[in-house]
Amino acid sequence: MRLYTSCDLAFEIPAPTPFVLMLRPRSGAQQWITREEYRLVPSVPVFEFTDNYGNLCQRLVALPGVFTVYTSAEVMTTDYVDQAPGAPFVEVQNLPDAELSYLLPSRYCESECFSQMASDITAGQKAGYDQAAAIVAWLRANIRFAPGSSNIPLSAVEVNIRQSGVCRDLAHLGMALCRSLSIPARMVVGYLYGLEPMDLHAWFEAYVGGRWYTFDATQAELKGGYVVIGYGRDAADVAVYNQFGPAVYPTAQTVCVQRLREE
Amino acid sequence: MRLYTSCDLAFEIPAPTPFVLMLRPRSGAQQWITREEYRLVPSVPVFEFTDNYGNLCQRLVALPGVFTVYTSAEVMTTDYVDQAPGAPFVEVQNLPDAELSYLLPSRYCESECFSQMASDITAGQKAGYDQAAAIVAWLRANIRFAPGSSNIPLSAVEVNIRQSGVCRDLAHLGMALCRSLSIPARMVVGYLYGLEPMDLHAWFEAYVGGRWYTFDATQAELKGGYVVIGYGRDAADVAVYNQFGPAVYPTAQTVCVQRLREE
Amino acid sequence: MRLYTSCDLAFEIPAPTPFVLMLRPRSGAQQWITREEYRLVPSVPVFEFTDNYGNLCQRLVALPGVFTVYTSAEVMTTDYVDQAPGAPFVEVQNLPDAELSYLLPSRYCESECFSQMASDITAGQKAGYDQAAAIVAWLRANIRFAPGSSNIPLSAVEVNIRQSGVCRDLAHLGMALCRSLSIPARMVVGYLYGLEPMDLHAWFEAYVGGRWYTFDATQAELKGGYVVIGYGRDAADVAVYNQFGPAVYPTAQTVCVQRLREE
Amino acid sequence: MRLYTSCDLAFEIPAPTPFVLMLRPRSGAQQWITREEYRLVPSVPVFEFTDNYGNLCQRLVALPGVFTVYTSAEVMTTDYVDQAPGAPFVEVQNLPDAELSYLLPSRYCESECFSQMASDITAGQKAGYDQAAAIVAWLRANIRFAPGSSNIPLSAVEVNIRQSGVCRDLAHLGMALCRSLSIPARMVVGYLYGLEPMDLHAWFEAYVGGRWYTFDATQAELKGGYVVIGYGRDAADVAVYNQFGPAVYPTAQTVCVQRLREE
Repeated sequence: MRLYTSCDLAFEIPAPTPFVLMLRPRSGAQQWITREEYRLVPSVPVFEFTDNYGNLCQRLVALPGVFTVYTSAEVMTTDYVDQAPGAPFVEVQNLPDAELSYLLPSRYCESECFSQMASDITAGQKAGYDQAAAIVAWLRANIRFAPGSSNIPLSAVEVNIRQSGVCRDLAHLGMALCRSLSIPARMVVGYLYGLEPMDLHAWFEAYVGGRWYTFDATQAELKGGYVVIGYGRDAADVAVYNQFGPAVYPTAQTVCVQRLREE
Repeated sequence: MRLYTSCDLAFEIPAPTPFVLMLRPRSGAQQWITREEYRLVPSVPVFEFTDNYGNLCQRLVALPGVFTVYTSAEVMTTDYVDQAPGAPFVEVQNLPDAELSYLLPSRYCESECFSQMASDITAGQKAGYDQAAAIVAWLRANIRFAPGSSNIPLSAVEVNIRQSGVCRDLAHLGMALCRSLSIPARMVVGYLYGLEPMDLHAWFEAYVGGRWYTFDATQAELKGGYVVIGYGRDAADVAVYNQFGPAVYPTAQTVCVQRLREE
Repeated sequence: MRLYTSCDLAFEIPAPTPFVLMLRPRSGAQQWITREEYRLVPSVPVFEFTDNYGNLCQRLVALPGVFTVYTSAEVMTTDYVDQAPGAPFVEVQNLPDAELSYLLPSRYCESECFSQMASDITAGQKAGYDQAAAIVAWLRANIRFAPGSSNIPLSAVEVNIRQSGVCRDLAHLGMALCRSLSIPARMVVGYLYGLEPMDLHAWFEAYVGGRWYTFDATQAELKGGYVVIGYGRDAADVAVYNQFGPAVYPTAQTVCVQRLREE
Repeated sequence: MRLYTSCDLAFEIPAPTPFVLMLRPRSGAQQWITREEYRLVPSVPVFEFTDNYGNLCQRLVALPGVFTVYTSAEVMTTDYVDQAPGAPFVEVQNLPDAELSYLLPSRYCESECFSQMASDITAGQKAGYDQAAAIVAWLRANIRFAPGSSNIPLSAVEVNIRQSGVCRDLAHLGMALCRSLSIPARMVVGYLYGLEPMDLHAWFEAYVGGRWYTFDATQAELKGGYVVIGYGRDAADVAVYNQFGPAVYPTAQTVCVQRLREE
């Protein structure tokens, strides 16, 4: 399907503040960016670089006053994400080198704590896709998806205690469970067509059967309409903005996803 | 200045043909892409990757029939490129690792053949920026810039024999001369505002005084209005399209660069 | 100084077990490996790759039975590591792209929790090297270095609660404090000549004044004799071995560091 | 088989001279380095980095006087390199991103000039391994292997004119022919057990059937005993030393490859 996405951020900056933004979706295996816009008001010098995970990041120093970032894109993405029940577990020795880092514990995925729990949840499942699917089914049934309930990320351990969280938090627990079974799992931040309430979204991917598959515990069923902005090990890697020095919070954040007519 | 750039390519494809395109300018130290468009007609699946030089490349298979690529961008770029007479030569041992590969000979820059000639041209110049500037002055005075005169790249040796060439060919000789003096030199393909006749353009950069500087032997003086599409060691690395299998030539190539009002 | 280092690991393997080892020190800015040995008994196929942090990692599948890894090296390293009181803080916007990831929170460095504490500890210090030095002085005075006290890594928050830890744990707290001040900090695992009791060691580096400097809260004063095996964001990135599947613990681990006569 | 390899280089240095050496074999898919030695006399500071092709390179400045480099290794390598008659051609669109650069022309492989010749040589062969094998058979029959006949690399075009060359030159022509058929080909420099006369050696690899295979037109048949030092697009990328400034030639170069008893 063809989507229009936009994310606008506004800040009230008290003193010159360095930012690293991650707001430029990349064309990749799962999406093609046909049109894109990225404006800063007021305009300041920007340097773009590619981080360890292949994301395009924008560095700049915001000046005192109102600072607004306008981004939008037109994206071709799939109507239905691929699903592959039965896709086999990939033995660690057969994983591509680049995916090994997605097996390790990370800031918000204390995967070393979840071995027993993951075994219990996936008991009787075929190793691979079906384990990841069982984890997501368990999350849907047991962890309450409470959008807007927290601003700071919860780690997998914390989510498991609270039994509720925002999209990002559910992904943390899902990934920690997958990694504890030696299934690489990575966090995705982006847009989802039809999300209620509309906002930036987060989900995760698991590497089984030789490729990455999309999983999302916040939705009753897995449809399409996903647009990826960035990948990482968890929320620490995929903040759409990191700001350094005294904290500055957005005074406005507007996210929009609309379906466009096919050309 | 604020520029609108576009490059459209049309092909008549006889049989399914793999392409690697390089037509997506990246935001970087010297430019900021505020708006971009990239459409393929008919639409085919595209996979984007980053090559060894940091360029974004698009892989696809064009299907039989007419195949058209439409790309355009709005870019903030500088009114005047930086110049730095007197900027010192960087000793090889002090070059960043990443720049060392731009010292080696490459397909169209047989730099090992030009030591004596480079010494002669730069006699009396301070090592560094002034050497590169002397090389460009020599090119302007001695090699005829003949846009449209050839379709296949000429190597530095060939350009030196013919004493004429297109923009890409002049860059090859300029880079070979710089490299023979142990000055890293890299090829740039992109757009230039005001180029006559309008077309894609090629020039080179030399690394002196701790950074890359722009040089262009095809212009009487160095102004601004440059938009970079890609970097590489020579024309072999920065083709805006590489096509594999039986040769297919564009039936149309339209390039446009216009100045936009400042916002 | 010229050092001989060795690390031997023995395992009793119950079932085929994938391992990723990180036991090959690389020649770099701070050390030069003149001789190296790396043997596996029994011999199994090994694939080496470079991870996101530039470390050489060795992948293999250990077979059931006794599995032993013998590594040793002769290394030229400095008698005294560089110290630079007064070296200035590098503004985030001026950091190299590659160092930005060392500003983010990671599994064992919850840097987002330590802003106030870091400010208190470094009150009155010049921003930069002196802040990192004050943090290390504070660690020496307040956190008990208890070698052998734990096998599993403690995060910065946990170390701060327990007020004691092994070398790795002290490094976690030191790094979390540095990062909360926007000073990049990275973990180092390796050898230290004269360490008591002898074992593998961990310390950290902080990026100030345009380069990385060594800090080690476990030693009364900063001398030389450090040999780096690997860099990372914290202990999750620099395990000398990661093993996947049912847990397997070393039955023996022997570490040796000796001084050799200068050649 | 288990091999001992060594390469010693001696230079008479007139003035401080920057060098980039490439003399440290890496453990990889096809070999495992169990022991290694790398000494410089006199000792000078060395910085090691990884180049675009994954090779370990050593940067240093040699001081006036005699400068000697001693390197040796013990390596486990295969008794017979893999051969795969019938292994299929990989369509360009299915090649890994990283291998695409090995399709392009390079300094000594003017692959754009060899389409017709490659078609003729491989007429009737199944696309893939058999084409590369036919190219090597043709080289054996038509290009004289003349070790020691030249010090400077010959490009594929030059080799084809002279009808003779050293190992490196034959590899250039073989790679240019492969690339003109859209088969990725890369140069390898290293050691070969039993080579007559003993020296550093060069050969090439072609990517077919989903992996790299070894080809060597200088040997009557393909056996094992190969030890890789470095990979690249051609001789310009894999010089075991590059030296900058006024030319300095080795006063001695000693290469040794011996078979060791299995452990």
